[in-house]
Amino acid sequence: MLGQVSPPSPHGSTLQRRSFLRSSLGFAAAALPVGSQAQTGPNARPIGEALPEAMKTPGGSDTPYGQPAVFERDVVRSESRAAGFSVWRSPLQHQRGTITPNGLHFATHHNGVPTIDPAKHVLMIHGLVERPLQFDLERLMRYPMVSRTHFLECAGNSAANALSMTALDHTLGDLAGEVSCAEWTGIPLSTLLNEAGLRPSAKWVVAEGADGGSHSRSLPLSALLKDGMLALYQNGERLRPSQGYPMRLLMPGWEGNVNVKWLHRLEVVDTPAYTKDESGLYTQVLNNGQIEHFAFHMEVKSVITHPSGQQTLPGVHGFYEIGGLAWSGRGRIAKVEVSIDGGASWAVAQLHGPVLDRAFTRFTLPWQWRGQKAVLMSRATDEMGHVQPSRKVWKSRYASHSFNHYNAIHAWQVGRDGRVENTYA
Amino acid sequence: MLGQVSPPSPHGSTLQRRSFLRSSLGFAAAALPVGSQAQTGPNARPIGEALPEAMKTPGGSDTPYGQPAVFERDVVRSESRAAGFSVWRSPLQHQRGTITPNGLHFATHHNGVPTIDPAKHVLMIHGLVERPLQFDLERLMRYPMVSRTHFLECAGNSAANALSMTALDHTLGDLAGEVSCAEWTGIPLSTLLNEAGLRPSAKWVVAEGADGGSHSRSLPLSALLKDGMLALYQNGERLRPSQGYPMRLLMPGWEGNVNVKWLHRLEVVDTPAYTKDESGLYTQVLNNGQIEHFAFHMEVKSVITHPSGQQTLPGVHGFYEIGGLAWSGRGRIAKVEVSIDGGASWAVAQLHGPVLDRAFTRFTLPWQWRGQKAVLMSRATDEMGHVQPSRKVWKSRYASHSFNHYNAIHAWQVGRDGRVENTYA
Repeated sequence: MLGQVSPPSPHGSTLQRRSFLRSSLGFAAAALPVGSQAQTGPNARPIGEALPEAMKTPGGSDTPYGQPAVFERDVVRSESRAAGFSVWRSPLQHQRGTITPNGLHFATHHNGVPTIDPAKHVLMIHGLVERPLQFDLERLMRYPMVSRTHFLECAGNSAANALSMTALDHTLGDLAGEVSCAEWTGIPLSTLLNEAGLRPSAKWVVAEGADGGSHSRSLPLSALLKDGMLALYQNGERLRPSQGYPMRLLMPGWEGNVNVKWLHRLEVVDTPAYTKDESGLYTQVLNNGQIEHFAFHMEVKSVITHPSGQQTLPGVHGFYEIGGLAWSGRGRIAKVEVSIDGGASWAVAQLHGPVLDRAFTRFTLPWQWRGQKAVLMSRATDEMGHVQPSRKVWKSRYASHSFNHYNAIHAWQVGRDGRVENTYA
Repeated sequence: MLGQVSPPSPHGSTLQRRSFLRSSLGFAAAALPVGSQAQTGPNARPIGEALPEAMKTPGGSDTPYGQPAVFERDVVRSESRAAGFSVWRSPLQHQRGTITPNGLHFATHHNGVPTIDPAKHVLMIHGLVERPLQFDLERLMRYPMVSRTHFLECAGNSAANALSMTALDHTLGDLAGEVSCAEWTGIPLSTLLNEAGLRPSAKWVVAEGADGGSHSRSLPLSALLKDGMLALYQNGERLRPSQGYPMRLLMPGWEGNVNVKWLHRLEVVDTPAYTKDESGLYTQVLNNGQIEHFAFHMEVKSVITHPSGQQTLPGVHGFYEIGGLAWSGRGRIAKVEVSIDGGASWAVAQLHGPVLDRAFTRFTLPWQWRGQKAVLMSRATDEMGHVQPSRKVWKSRYASHSFNHYNAIHAWQVGRDGRVENTYA
């Protein structure tokens, strides 16, 4: 019921025309008519019955800084810790749209979250520059700023699927929630670097955070000049401590850890510093024993967010929407294909615009589920022509203990009982 | 120093070329060189001095649902109450970019914020339909959803500037903070209305909220079918109680109060219901004594967010960025002009894309401030050719006690001491 079907248009009326008529079930299966069935459904309430409780009394107070509903208290990030690390994964399975709210943005901390008084924080630019400079926040606030919507992904996102011999039965957030997307606002780094004046020998920049581990990474100067941002705002408000308050480096499309949080120092140099994290954890060992240093770009990737791991289709056969997120560190998403038969056949999903450069793109495809077993997969292609590999192809390229930059096609198995589970298809 | 200057490009290098060379001050005035001045500046710290405190100890914990920095505790919504009303204004002067974070989205409550258990909430569609239907959340979650980024503005936003004989010295948020912008995700209302089946006599829809005041508005059916959304998510997460949890009506570009929160009922009818709020508060009395009913669209408007009311330029002459937000309920922003001389001359500001339909658009213009008095104004034009009127023209159209849909050009006076203050220029 999927391969040959036109995806729905984002306009309801068109969608209705295309999808309603495809099946005697259509969407109608999803609504309860008022009357017969209505009175037997779990939420049935004949019109004319007593008013909802909330309509009988005045409402409560709002708060100066708004918070989610108490009924959504389980929609939070999950933490896992290992060797000084703390990873907070975003519950992608509970999100729709493309913007990650700031409270749910993933975070990876190498040494916890420092508390930094912005009035005392200074950014230094020094090294191979004509004029070493330092900037306090009051001064930085006067610079022209730009806004860009970009995803951010931890190099180690989806590590479990890269490493585990068998597919672990986890939620999407726990499997692949080290990725989020936000509107970042800040100062192009080129403005600040050019103000300091770059010497001819300048080739790299060492970015250091003001955290207890002085997390540091070396980045090519040319890339920083082209795309780097000193980010001060995320989704309209100042960065949160978890995201580098009061400032971080943002390199669109590059692995999370080079987007140095709590940034306090940019040292312009002629050669990489080979810092702890770029010599160790964030290198990739290939299958032939060679090591990939400075593999900055996150590759094209996609995940189906609904239905997804540990969810259960509510037992009602009929229409479901398959939906998910796609992104690429190389540019825009060009195409997402979806399979419901474990990759035997593919249908082109609808992309929901605006399709932005190095940002989350939503894709959806209508699906009629009739209680059959199914294996749902998504395969994204970016505008540079990069396509997600199969897990097998990805594993053949890297050493068996490698897990960074895992971007293989991901699969969910749907059982006859409607339960959805992670699988290696 | 403004009218004839090219606005900066969003790319730092271009900006630097265009703006740096315009003046011997340039941006350089904003940074402190390390060395001489650095050691006398308030935040000077010669390179090599002791590490920042945060680098000497491990960082603290993160939380499952992230929160802003404690140092940002003053960046909150301000409340004002009047006659059963509660208005929470967004601190626009502290925001950058175009997305309003959910914690700072403005809200107007007619009867407080109801607490609604989503498991018990039902949306009914009835009246002039073939099949009255009701929808619980589990069923609604199966429908195809779309995402749209749209501003939302209270009809009464900027009422103080419409009504007060003299310009009140308030912050931008307190003057005009009843407007915000978010990515909304939900189900096109056409899907649900068409599923119920519309009778030929159907012309209007009465939308009712499940709040203590059963806030209700009548909307033309044709507009709901074209643009209406049953919104379930805001910036990726479920709506917050303040925004209508678990669901609200969203009519892009229309005055806030018709975007009925806590939506529980859509009654399809052949004529408007003339509910309390559409017969009283949300009508407009014209200068000729006639009444404008159902003036739904919010008109083209803009505000300068920085510098803005009660801020003080830090006394350092030189480069400043003038920046602000523009929006129109009629479509995309086509142009924003900025004046620094109270409207005697105008320069075209840069628009920061993507410029979306009925959404916040950022504009900026570089400015050299040399300590002179200045009157900053912004004037937006939308793609339909609508232009913001002067305050005088706006006031001449409406009765003196009218204040809804106020969209006149707004002005900030900058004193020689750098203080910024609301003014009627």
